[in-house]
Amino acid sequence: MEPLIPSSELSANSLAALRRVLGETGLLTGGAQREAYARDNSGRRFLPWAVALPKSREEVAGTLKICHEAGIPVIPRGAGTGCVGGALAIEGGLVLSTQRMNRILAVEPGDRFAVVEPGVVNAELGRRLAEQGLCWPPDPSSARSCTIGGNLAMCSAGPNAVRHGVTRHWVLGMTVILADGQTMRVGGYTTKGVVGYDLTQLLIGSEGTLAVLVEATLKLAPLPEARRTLRAAFADMDGAARAVAGIMARGEPPSALEFLDPAALELVRGTLPEVCHPLGRALLLIEVEGARAEIEERARAMRERLEAFAPVEVTVARDEAESKRIWAARHALSPTLTRIAPKRVNEDVVVPVTRLADLVAGLASISQESGVPIVGFGHAGNGNIHVNLLTDPADPTQGPRVHQALERVFDLVLALRGTLSGEHGVGIMKRDFIDRELDPESLRMQRAIKRLFDPKGILNPGKIFPIDGQ
Amino acid sequence: MEPLIPSSELSANSLAALRRVLGETGLLTGGAQREAYARDNSGRRFLPWAVALPKSREEVAGTLKICHEAGIPVIPRGAGTGCVGGALAIEGGLVLSTQRMNRILAVEPGDRFAVVEPGVVNAELGRRLAEQGLCWPPDPSSARSCTIGGNLAMCSAGPNAVRHGVTRHWVLGMTVILADGQTMRVGGYTTKGVVGYDLTQLLIGSEGTLAVLVEATLKLAPLPEARRTLRAAFADMDGAARAVAGIMARGEPPSALEFLDPAALELVRGTLPEVCHPLGRALLLIEVEGARAEIEERARAMRERLEAFAPVEVTVARDEAESKRIWAARHALSPTLTRIAPKRVNEDVVVPVTRLADLVAGLASISQESGVPIVGFGHAGNGNIHVNLLTDPADPTQGPRVHQALERVFDLVLALRGTLSGEHGVGIMKRDFIDRELDPESLRMQRAIKRLFDPKGILNPGKIFPIDGQ
Repeated sequence: MEPLIPSSELSANSLAALRRVLGETGLLTGGAQREAYARDNSGRRFLPWAVALPKSREEVAGTLKICHEAGIPVIPRGAGTGCVGGALAIEGGLVLSTQRMNRILAVEPGDRFAVVEPGVVNAELGRRLAEQGLCWPPDPSSARSCTIGGNLAMCSAGPNAVRHGVTRHWVLGMTVILADGQTMRVGGYTTKGVVGYDLTQLLIGSEGTLAVLVEATLKLAPLPEARRTLRAAFADMDGAARAVAGIMARGEPPSALEFLDPAALELVRGTLPEVCHPLGRALLLIEVEGARAEIEERARAMRERLEAFAPVEVTVARDEAESKRIWAARHALSPTLTRIAPKRVNEDVVVPVTRLADLVAGLASISQESGVPIVGFGHAGNGNIHVNLLTDPADPTQGPRVHQALERVFDLVLALRGTLSGEHGVGIMKRDFIDRELDPESLRMQRAIKRLFDPKGILNPGKIFPIDGQ
Repeated sequence: MEPLIPSSELSANSLAALRRVLGETGLLTGGAQREAYARDNSGRRFLPWAVALPKSREEVAGTLKICHEAGIPVIPRGAGTGCVGGALAIEGGLVLSTQRMNRILAVEPGDRFAVVEPGVVNAELGRRLAEQGLCWPPDPSSARSCTIGGNLAMCSAGPNAVRHGVTRHWVLGMTVILADGQTMRVGGYTTKGVVGYDLTQLLIGSEGTLAVLVEATLKLAPLPEARRTLRAAFADMDGAARAVAGIMARGEPPSALEFLDPAALELVRGTLPEVCHPLGRALLLIEVEGARAEIEERARAMRERLEAFAPVEVTVARDEAESKRIWAARHALSPTLTRIAPKRVNEDVVVPVTRLADLVAGLASISQESGVPIVGFGHAGNGNIHVNLLTDPADPTQGPRVHQALERVFDLVLALRGTLSGEHGVGIMKRDFIDRELDPESLRMQRAIKRLFDPKGILNPGKIFPIDGQ
């Protein structure tokens, strides 16, 4: 076992107190051990002073009590799959990992809820629920490793939000530990409830800056009996965008409505030459779901809706294998982008669906004028686009141009009545931009709520809010 | 025109200032005029000092600024259909009616949102949206008269919440006026967005105690192409409750899953003798919805699911007329109850769906032991039951027994992990009970948020929070 090297930043008293609460195996202080908690998917690195691995809500409460008294920053962490640095100890402090609080405490099919600890992995919960014909809809692309606690902290979502809504729609209640170690229960176990202010909803998406989750009551949905995948290629982005708006304007939304813009489609052609018809310049991937008895009719109706927008080609997957081949184009994008541009800037902006064509056209202009390649793809049905600026680390002159291009992207999104983040959150990556989006009164009120919940500022400091004037 | 009698409680200065902002027709001070705003559906009466009828957000802001400076209570009011006294001037003050702010400002089908002023009537919005094949799902039973502002203030819901979720799921953003007259914009125009704390969700259900709504951006859903109504009669409540839990445990939820307990069913038989099979002692009313091509299959599948729970009888309405006859039983309840017990106590408690049978059995015991007739019916699919205590004003000894019975009902609901209100809210009617339900830390935090938004306590004072220790 690695020798325990006390972090210089934690006093011997604090370390001893934390060890009494967490036990020998519940507190990591070795350099290599801490290194494992120094990164997330933002690409940034901040070494924490120590890492707490509580096993129970009592241990979380004890840990927070000590940190609150000593003024030690506490950084709640799920699986570290977040994209905005939300789980990083940017001002030092104690990373509080929920990895050992990973029990599914109850599944109640008739009541349509499950009770889970925050460290439960999204896909693991999915497997357990599927046995009973149920699901918890939120499906971030990191579902195989990300945790429910992280999903709630960031209000992260995935493709099926277009049909099922976002994470906050699927939480009934929670138990959290406040900054000073007090336990607070909010919400309930029922699908309706209007007694008092909805603190559950306030806490969801607060990125670990208001409290630490120790238990969540999740609302469940029926697992769809059947799914069908469709692919539609269009001669240009305008056609694809019109189809997206047309599909969203009428009728039941599909359970996924993803798109690849011309730049993204070109990239994927490199690895998957038969991704679509050679004349296709923009691609839509659609999934419909429903009862087995209904699914053929739904796929047929969706094909008909697509064909009204004059695609180059529409394909309905005949079986699971073909469905997988179609989705391969979407799944190939992130790895391909990471390979060709490891330091790419990945933003998850959102615009109203009908402004998608304006967004993509704007991105093309910004790319051309800045000389920074920009690739767009993502959750078209929500207008939620992953905008990737493909930076070239070998080009030292690129830095200012990338920054300028990013600023222009954000300004464009806001001019189209959009938002800077649909599912990644703010963390440290966007905190200096949010005052462009948020009304000053709203920002002022949010800061006041932060001070109310965390007067000493120990919970995930430096996240969400712009540093200036904090 | 009635002579304007200044309320003694408003200074001449305040009146003059309000009149400058609101104009002659925008401020009502006559006795009969004020009387029209003295009641809501709670049966209580509190005469306001005056009534403001602003036509714009600027007039709302100007009104609040004056009231904030002078310390005048402001009571926001929609249509006055609320059940808990939320719109009443219990400490005097100015009722701020949104009735003249009733414009639908935009409907954007492709983006699935509408922008409305708070005074728009729910059903009027529904008619306008239906022209474009869309709907705003929340459907309180007062939909024909209640306003969107009231719906958002109370997070009120109706039968279709079982499928579509509650009001808070259908709001994207809002513009509000804060207590001091400042304007604050929260949320946005997109179906995803995670920038900062979600103040939209905090404001929904805050019963006019945190801010005054002047504009809401509502998320829209497709209008279902077709609907079918089913009725299932059961020999006892247990069978009906088992069917409800069974239906909710698997598969797509119906768009309504209502029930009448034995006492409710007996009442309705008086006015509608052929309400169901003579052996039926508990009744479920179910509605399924979907595409025209799917609806017959859905009705068939629902009938099959119902029949698994051994009902006395299942009926599928063949046409709109039969559907209306079936729903007549549900709609007859409230008028019948009001006729036989004008002073009935009407609570809208919620329990997890599988505890419905326990709730109804417990209500029967409480009724028997207290001698107060209790009738239960409502939104079974959400576990949201309207519990009516049929008080007899002619019986002077009943008062304490009613109060005691009500306390036992609330204790029972909380013991079953339920909540005291699913859609009516707290107002003044339940404020003395909410500390039984809410965690003390949560209540403390909610009071602190109230002080943050409204330090002088002018917004709808005396609502939600227990008076003791406020």
